[in-house]
Amino acid sequence: MSSPLRVAVTGAAGNIGYSLLWRLAGGDCFGADQPIILQLLEIPQVMDKLEGVVMELVDSARPIVHDIVATDDPRKAFDGADYVFLVGSRPRTANMDRADLVAANGPIFVGQGKALNDVAGSDVRVLVVGNPCNTNAMIAAHHAPDIPKHRFTAMTRLDQNRACGQLAAKAGVPVADVHDVVVWGNHSNQMYPDVTYATVGGRPALRIFDEAWLRGEFLQTVATRGKAVIKARGASSAASAASSAIDVMHDWYHGSGGHMVSMAVWSKGWYGIPDGLICSVPVRCEGGDYEVITDLELDDFGREKLDKNISDLSAEREAVADLL
Amino acid sequence: MSSPLRVAVTGAAGNIGYSLLWRLAGGDCFGADQPIILQLLEIPQVMDKLEGVVMELVDSARPIVHDIVATDDPRKAFDGADYVFLVGSRPRTANMDRADLVAANGPIFVGQGKALNDVAGSDVRVLVVGNPCNTNAMIAAHHAPDIPKHRFTAMTRLDQNRACGQLAAKAGVPVADVHDVVVWGNHSNQMYPDVTYATVGGRPALRIFDEAWLRGEFLQTVATRGKAVIKARGASSAASAASSAIDVMHDWYHGSGGHMVSMAVWSKGWYGIPDGLICSVPVRCEGGDYEVITDLELDDFGREKLDKNISDLSAEREAVADLL
Repeated sequence: MSSPLRVAVTGAAGNIGYSLLWRLAGGDCFGADQPIILQLLEIPQVMDKLEGVVMELVDSARPIVHDIVATDDPRKAFDGADYVFLVGSRPRTANMDRADLVAANGPIFVGQGKALNDVAGSDVRVLVVGNPCNTNAMIAAHHAPDIPKHRFTAMTRLDQNRACGQLAAKAGVPVADVHDVVVWGNHSNQMYPDVTYATVGGRPALRIFDEAWLRGEFLQTVATRGKAVIKARGASSAASAASSAIDVMHDWYHGSGGHMVSMAVWSKGWYGIPDGLICSVPVRCEGGDYEVITDLELDDFGREKLDKNISDLSAEREAVADLL
Repeated sequence: MSSPLRVAVTGAAGNIGYSLLWRLAGGDCFGADQPIILQLLEIPQVMDKLEGVVMELVDSARPIVHDIVATDDPRKAFDGADYVFLVGSRPRTANMDRADLVAANGPIFVGQGKALNDVAGSDVRVLVVGNPCNTNAMIAAHHAPDIPKHRFTAMTRLDQNRACGQLAAKAGVPVADVHDVVVWGNHSNQMYPDVTYATVGGRPALRIFDEAWLRGEFLQTVATRGKAVIKARGASSAASAASSAIDVMHDWYHGSGGHMVSMAVWSKGWYGIPDGLICSVPVRCEGGDYEVITDLELDDFGREKLDKNISDLSAEREAVADLL
């Protein structure tokens, strides 16, 4: 057996955490034979609940779970961590607009960035799920100067997966047949699911779906999917968010099988995205790392969509300027 | 790719279902490359919620999920099913004792047994998770005369896993080092977790733990674990129950690696258990089937415990005699 990976999860007693932990314990992320040590962080107010989650993890007797740490101290949770899921964040409450949400979450990610910088493993990889995830990731990365910026990503994979699900349903094929869908931009209802390079059953998506549907109903469905799930299920997306987080880290660790996937990463200026914005772009994962695909062509529609996202992300950065 | 397995889940919009579905979709049960068709059953009152769960499954874009059926008709949910998780049941409410619970659930499992008999796949295997699971399984099996009785099991694996978790914690070793713990009897607080043949890190458990602890605190902790989880987490065990259900079906499908595991199965009279009670016994799984290990010795303490379980299960059978 290989030595255990240290996997940290924040917001571990929340609903996404509850789904995520058992997918990790099931071996879905790093492999069915790869031991892991779960390092779980919560806020002091819900440590009782986290203790209940730990009891259930113990009760699951998962052979790959080598040990479990539960703490309200980020420096303990991130100690030596190889892979970090930053799931916990302040949720949006009534009368809060996106700027308020950005401002409310900023300080959390300042502290977590600093703790990661001080104690995380030297090869740490960090996925931010807690919203507004792009800007939260930017703040954390900013406060972890010793960790290379490309080791932080924010999650737009749920948008990608939602897009793939809609394409498969529309075409009447299993979703395994859908590849190379790319989400550009911010994880918000402005993100742009781009099928220009996508294939469905080996055929170009652009030959299968008509433009009106792609730019209309499809885009709208993906953008508003979170609300639709809340309406139907009576609770926000949890298992699908956790599943998408597993997908990101799985691909980062195992590779994306030659396919393009979406990761929001620290921009180096590609596609006209200002340096240092965390913006979703197409990547390929291989050998434990990812490479941004920098030479795709965006048509006018896509360019306009990306520009809107750049503008939004720039505004979010302005809103937290005092934290940077 | 092999052809998809049809996997039916009842109570699919409940909390255990919500955990279970993504473990199935993650490939934890039948394998990361084995396609599945999920056939989900719920009661009419929560079909909206089930629709939300299906939306999230679609949004997870799991490549092995070939198709999803959501219905309130058992005959559709079980149609051609290869593996069936009977999770849904009437929960116990205030002022209900166990006999009331047995009586309230019986009719559900009469109907589901008949539907399984009529439409399930010819090799169907059925795991009953919904409580009182032993007696529910007996009722379902009784009403499915064309399905061999040994294809029904009730879940005592959660008790086994809880026991393994406690032994590992006490010994200070990863739970992967604990093997051959056997749970006897009913899935109730009377079940008996037997470590007579168990090993921990290759050493006999009986040489590691003292008898007073095994018969006292250990037994008590495992028996009352469900309540302790509710107290800590504010909700009943869901992910650990789902994980144990995955373990049962995983081992039934892939084998138990030469180890003994616990399954509550239709008795043929072994260990003095009356014919036709569904009672947990040690089994080994191999080649897609299980074999009951019929030659273990029970000491006086264990015999007494098993006899108490036999007495309880017989009383439960009496309580549903009109359904048999």
